[in-house]
Amino acid sequence: MSSRLIDSLATTDALAEVFSDQSLLQAMLDFEAALARAEAKAGVIPDRAAEAISAAASADGLDGAAIAREARGSGTVSIPLVSALTARVQATDAASARFVHFGATSQDVADSAMVLTIQRAHATLSGDHARLERTLRQLSDRHARTVMLGRTLLQPAPPITFGLKVAGWVAALVRGWKRLESASRESAVLQFGGASGTLAALGNRGLDVSRALAADLGLRNPEAPWHTHRDRLGALVSACGLYTATLGKVARDISLLMQDEVGEATERGGGSSTMPHKRNPAACAVALAASTRLPGLVAAFLAGMVQEHERAVGGWHAEWPTIADALQATGSALSAMADAAAELSVHADRMRANIERTNGAVFAERAMMLMTDSVGREPARRLVTDALARSRETGKTFGEALLAMPDAVRAIPADELRTIDVPEEYLGAAETLRVQLLNPEL
Amino acid sequence: MSSRLIDSLATTDALAEVFSDQSLLQAMLDFEAALARAEAKAGVIPDRAAEAISAAASADGLDGAAIAREARGSGTVSIPLVSALTARVQATDAASARFVHFGATSQDVADSAMVLTIQRAHATLSGDHARLERTLRQLSDRHARTVMLGRTLLQPAPPITFGLKVAGWVAALVRGWKRLESASRESAVLQFGGASGTLAALGNRGLDVSRALAADLGLRNPEAPWHTHRDRLGALVSACGLYTATLGKVARDISLLMQDEVGEATERGGGSSTMPHKRNPAACAVALAASTRLPGLVAAFLAGMVQEHERAVGGWHAEWPTIADALQATGSALSAMADAAAELSVHADRMRANIERTNGAVFAERAMMLMTDSVGREPARRLVTDALARSRETGKTFGEALLAMPDAVRAIPADELRTIDVPEEYLGAAETLRVQLLNPEL
Amino acid sequence: MSSRLIDSLATTDALAEVFSDQSLLQAMLDFEAALARAEAKAGVIPDRAAEAISAAASADGLDGAAIAREARGSGTVSIPLVSALTARVQATDAASARFVHFGATSQDVADSAMVLTIQRAHATLSGDHARLERTLRQLSDRHARTVMLGRTLLQPAPPITFGLKVAGWVAALVRGWKRLESASRESAVLQFGGASGTLAALGNRGLDVSRALAADLGLRNPEAPWHTHRDRLGALVSACGLYTATLGKVARDISLLMQDEVGEATERGGGSSTMPHKRNPAACAVALAASTRLPGLVAAFLAGMVQEHERAVGGWHAEWPTIADALQATGSALSAMADAAAELSVHADRMRANIERTNGAVFAERAMMLMTDSVGREPARRLVTDALARSRETGKTFGEALLAMPDAVRAIPADELRTIDVPEEYLGAAETLRVQLLNPEL
Amino acid sequence: MSSRLIDSLATTDALAEVFSDQSLLQAMLDFEAALARAEAKAGVIPDRAAEAISAAASADGLDGAAIAREARGSGTVSIPLVSALTARVQATDAASARFVHFGATSQDVADSAMVLTIQRAHATLSGDHARLERTLRQLSDRHARTVMLGRTLLQPAPPITFGLKVAGWVAALVRGWKRLESASRESAVLQFGGASGTLAALGNRGLDVSRALAADLGLRNPEAPWHTHRDRLGALVSACGLYTATLGKVARDISLLMQDEVGEATERGGGSSTMPHKRNPAACAVALAASTRLPGLVAAFLAGMVQEHERAVGGWHAEWPTIADALQATGSALSAMADAAAELSVHADRMRANIERTNGAVFAERAMMLMTDSVGREPARRLVTDALARSRETGKTFGEALLAMPDAVRAIPADELRTIDVPEEYLGAAETLRVQLLNPEL
Repeated sequence: MSSRLIDSLATTDALAEVFSDQSLLQAMLDFEAALARAEAKAGVIPDRAAEAISAAASADGLDGAAIAREARGSGTVSIPLVSALTARVQATDAASARFVHFGATSQDVADSAMVLTIQRAHATLSGDHARLERTLRQLSDRHARTVMLGRTLLQPAPPITFGLKVAGWVAALVRGWKRLESASRESAVLQFGGASGTLAALGNRGLDVSRALAADLGLRNPEAPWHTHRDRLGALVSACGLYTATLGKVARDISLLMQDEVGEATERGGGSSTMPHKRNPAACAVALAASTRLPGLVAAFLAGMVQEHERAVGGWHAEWPTIADALQATGSALSAMADAAAELSVHADRMRANIERTNGAVFAERAMMLMTDSVGREPARRLVTDALARSRETGKTFGEALLAMPDAVRAIPADELRTIDVPEEYLGAAETLRVQLLNPEL
Repeated sequence: MSSRLIDSLATTDALAEVFSDQSLLQAMLDFEAALARAEAKAGVIPDRAAEAISAAASADGLDGAAIAREARGSGTVSIPLVSALTARVQATDAASARFVHFGATSQDVADSAMVLTIQRAHATLSGDHARLERTLRQLSDRHARTVMLGRTLLQPAPPITFGLKVAGWVAALVRGWKRLESASRESAVLQFGGASGTLAALGNRGLDVSRALAADLGLRNPEAPWHTHRDRLGALVSACGLYTATLGKVARDISLLMQDEVGEATERGGGSSTMPHKRNPAACAVALAASTRLPGLVAAFLAGMVQEHERAVGGWHAEWPTIADALQATGSALSAMADAAAELSVHADRMRANIERTNGAVFAERAMMLMTDSVGREPARRLVTDALARSRETGKTFGEALLAMPDAVRAIPADELRTIDVPEEYLGAAETLRVQLLNPEL
Repeated sequence: MSSRLIDSLATTDALAEVFSDQSLLQAMLDFEAALARAEAKAGVIPDRAAEAISAAASADGLDGAAIAREARGSGTVSIPLVSALTARVQATDAASARFVHFGATSQDVADSAMVLTIQRAHATLSGDHARLERTLRQLSDRHARTVMLGRTLLQPAPPITFGLKVAGWVAALVRGWKRLESASRESAVLQFGGASGTLAALGNRGLDVSRALAADLGLRNPEAPWHTHRDRLGALVSACGLYTATLGKVARDISLLMQDEVGEATERGGGSSTMPHKRNPAACAVALAASTRLPGLVAAFLAGMVQEHERAVGGWHAEWPTIADALQATGSALSAMADAAAELSVHADRMRANIERTNGAVFAERAMMLMTDSVGREPARRLVTDALARSRETGKTFGEALLAMPDAVRAIPADELRTIDVPEEYLGAAETLRVQLLNPEL
Repeated sequence: MSSRLIDSLATTDALAEVFSDQSLLQAMLDFEAALARAEAKAGVIPDRAAEAISAAASADGLDGAAIAREARGSGTVSIPLVSALTARVQATDAASARFVHFGATSQDVADSAMVLTIQRAHATLSGDHARLERTLRQLSDRHARTVMLGRTLLQPAPPITFGLKVAGWVAALVRGWKRLESASRESAVLQFGGASGTLAALGNRGLDVSRALAADLGLRNPEAPWHTHRDRLGALVSACGLYTATLGKVARDISLLMQDEVGEATERGGGSSTMPHKRNPAACAVALAASTRLPGLVAAFLAGMVQEHERAVGGWHAEWPTIADALQATGSALSAMADAAAELSVHADRMRANIERTNGAVFAERAMMLMTDSVGREPARRLVTDALARSRETGKTFGEALLAMPDAVRAIPADELRTIDVPEEYLGAAETLRVQLLNPEL
């Protein structure tokens, strides 16, 4: 009944465990146990009941599929879960069974369990982000002086350094991670409100129970229950979308660099079932797959946020698969890219060779800028265009072609003309920008 | 490791089985066995190899999670699956092992297996659609004369019949199902092209093998492999989106009618964990949840369709979870609404009472239309507005108020004035439209 | 050629002006003028050129449609815009024309102009948010004690106060606005990098120019150009999605309360072309329309973020309509709800009446909680179910039914039994929660 | 106030006109005029009124922006439009003014006008599709024998022909266009139902009027009004999404082939504001931008389809911008790709050279297939891997490396070994598949 295979590229083992039936059942039971303890502490139920409930609150032996099946009848997994827990307590301490789930509503346990699960998922992602960031920082430093083509609309442009490109990745990933971390922290908030969100069933002890319950679960106690205000979770899913989009951008860049004709970087990759010569950008494929799916998942979550009154009909019921998919896809992409970055082969020679094979054409801008001041823009453009044409016709480099044109020689300072197509001489502020990207606070 | 719980409202037992690891593994193995048979038939491999491969092609004992784990390395489940099958054949008939997956590429087996799985899923949906359509047709017929408020922007409008409303549902569901069926049929197409989609590995026997393989699997043999042309699958997922949107519309209508203050229809519904008096529209919640998610799933699929060259990096790898989720959510919504329709309680008395509690105001349009011809639009509007105001002030019905206004009495034919607020007298073409909706060919 | 009509509900006059051709052209010209000044300051171009360019940089008389048409050829509006500006400068000071757009790339001007436009749009929204928040705070305070049904899955639940409901709206809107404001602030960042993002064309003065240019435009100078790192804009569009989802939730609640059968609140609304009696929730329709569109717009933006190398092919080109639509739809929804809130009629009598018409059934939970301790859960549930049945059969209230049942009388403390169905006695922590929601820092 | 600039890449001049204010106002007025004529024909209103209304029904001089502004009050453009028309008729023939919009509801005119507009938009697209299909068919035929690398996951794979690649594009575009055409035809359906969709305001002549009105407008008369059943429009928007996804796939392929390092095809492209040497894939950028946006637009439409009762609050109001954007973006992408295809330069020499620069490695599969039968899979894989390694080390081709390995020479038939790396010898069924793709009925 499991669909691990469908999600083979869409999750990791660690995250599949976090969102497994056992894990979710346990999170729900953890809520029920903590609720009982909080209520005992507040004098709402007997201590003995809290103990009996805590003791029974283990997911071992519970049948997730059966609970899932029953959930369809009531629209929530909480009802069969509470029944199962109640039956267990009943078996050991009949008098305490009445205090299971006391004063809580189905959504309280379901939401709080999902919040706890999200925190676990976030912790899983956290290590991979740190690893990816660290690896990429080193990569950027190592290649601070490795020149390569800039590429705009997939066409050659003036050179950059590979270090700068990687630093751009790092900065965007760090911004994305901060958003994700902040959204995750904001979402670490207890859900507890009872039927209508007023805690009325607990008389005047509702707020005390709420505080104690939050503390027990390690969650923040919010201003009020948020049964139909899902913006914190929406912000989290959106943050997954933003972060994964950057992972996808990195993966796209690498997969483009890895093209045989470009050959500037190679991820370890995976083999092919039929082609012994092949090395596929398998990690990039995983990340790009995630960045393909996330926008739709974010849309699905946002669409469900328009929820009715004090509990939604449908919007809430749509959330679980979306949250689980968003976090798992994000984590899968992250894990793949952390691996890919750690084992990335960079081919600095090909980078330089690809600049050279443009025969200097990418320095046309440089020549034009240098001449514009002295001769004006249109004459400069004409000279450059002529030089490009000559270069194409004769096979000479663009620089050589310029040197053969007296007007160009007059218009460009001699020392600049001599090095017109030396990549290192046309990097502008690349290194400063690189350092700034890696140290945004400076 | 299973996540049945996350999807408790997002699938059914039957569909969870269709998309289970065992089911998918078997579909992949069915492809490999059929391929071997087709190749033996075409003289590409020995008959004995086909027999050995067919005999070994059972998912029993295969570990889906392990295969899923290995898939991350290569970016496809096909490679570990083929390895596992090869090992099995090796164990029983070493000489035949070389012919496993002969001339096929990973995507051939993965895509064809998904196509087979889709056909199974579609068959599952088919029964529920037939049941839903049949039930709603009967419901429409039964309530051909049951008057109720039309409601526009959630405000009372002139009356309709419940039969007409239900017939509108039926017609849209039938249109949606036709789209889904046609897209499902179109997608029932073999994938078989080898590494680059030319079948080159099979020399001049590729087309023969393809034909035989398609026939063996009960799939259509397409004009050519479609490794990066995913429009047939995209059309299927879109059709799920369109159909589920109508299911969502039906669910929205029912959940609105089921509001306590409206009380015109009630689904059997589910209970509450805390409120013994409650009956929740649980089936509607399931359907609305699906219609909340589908737009994002459709978007995810469409976004992934922009695939590179002869095999995509990422776009293809994103598809499986989306297809599985789309079909399961559609089927879950359909099953829920088929149940809800079968057990829907309709409260004709409340329908009439809700018309009556508007005190005739919804017939204001009728009065205006009747007077416009004789007195002109603005005078008619003034008279109607006056009558509405008097009705509100005095508690008299709108009809009584009109009768007390000599200008109105002059302007409206007497027999029409007398029945001005009789719903049955202001149904226009409702019954003809209802019959046409149920019989669109007429 | 304008499509103001298509967007009639999707923008406001103020926002349509912000995103008009004239406004965008001016923003682009503002960039070019500021660039010239910054370059003059840095000694890159003559002061005189900066003056000539600044003087020519007015959108008056430019033909947006013509520029749009030419943009298709090059893939950017910047090229025809720069041509038009150059021609103007040429006409007045030929020697300065060469310094137009000096060292900048098309994306620099297009992105910076959009950033400036976003800031203007945000300022427009800001006033409406303040107005909406203020109005709703007052509304919440005014109705701190107005009891109404809680409603879960559109079914009656124990009472809340209207003040609490509104406070929930306020808190979510405030959280959403903070996200939007923070994302807007983060996105207020200059784009300036030249062809490959290294500022190479400006030699060693690129960073000086960048700093001065940012200061001139009132934008932050970023760590580095962000030509293919669009996360700041993505965060802004996502924040629009989150905020509009809450606006949609408020609109959904109001439109549901405004149903004739519920009748608890009424927005001023709009009339009908055919039904003189009608008052439609027109403002809610505008907000719900926006919240319907935003998820797809967010998805579109996120999908475009996977951008290639140093300038994207397609992803970047997709952004403008999405950003413009997202901000305008958000602002349209916000303006509509600010109006609706300011003129909302609240019908406290109907709120109470709707509680009463449940005949006490919504207090079933209360009775059950009160009895659980003494008799246990299942006996309590049986007693409550019995009482509900008697109430339905006899027309007595649930409280009266309980009073007639000796077991219930024994199980519930007398003073609680007497007030079992008094809404004010079963509000739990509603007022404290309300105050906390309005003052989240406390 | 126009935003032509924002949409510069997202529409064409022709489509911008189709969705302009004037065009939409005229479509609405065409409905009102046709309605009057149909009602006169059915004897519902005087002939003279029909003439007066027809005569007044011209959009000339109407102020779209003013009507848009008023629309916010009522939630529909129909009300101010009807007012404006009524005022005009009033001015020339006061007695006829009362018959303007007689018996229709706002949504009738708005929906029917949009349907008419869609038909005009579709006609615009139609020519471009025919042009694109024709051009690509010729291109495919011309390059039936032009060999090039297959590329899977952006890595070199066994060869295909450019003709086959283009034929794949053609077949997918033709399938997509059929879907679009069929959806467009299905959506060409009158909306006419009056307030609640029963035509009650027209007594027993509603159906006659409906038939005549449909005939006058050249639209199909549906089984019943479809005020809240939007699946036909949803199918159209989805079909735009599917078709544009294929346009995006073609654009992605071309933009990848146009990379300087690949250099196999070049679109005419656009220049750069700063880099004289550049030729950007501007048409591909337009198409990829559209395929980036469409998934979100489809999602937005689908999300809005869950519409309440007889007229939605919000869902309907969200549709216009989405429909207009979807059709315009589709048409913009189509027009761009039709241009690009017509002027595409194909570099067959580079295609062959890129095969050759793999030094035969892409024929590794071929060698393995040829050896598998005789030596078994694993030995074959070892031999091939050895040969690949030798080729890499020595610079010899893969074929030469094999020839130097006695085991390989034994395992592969001599004539096959001699031509092992001749692309033309390893094209499998490419040409048959190409022909089948271009002639799917065969």
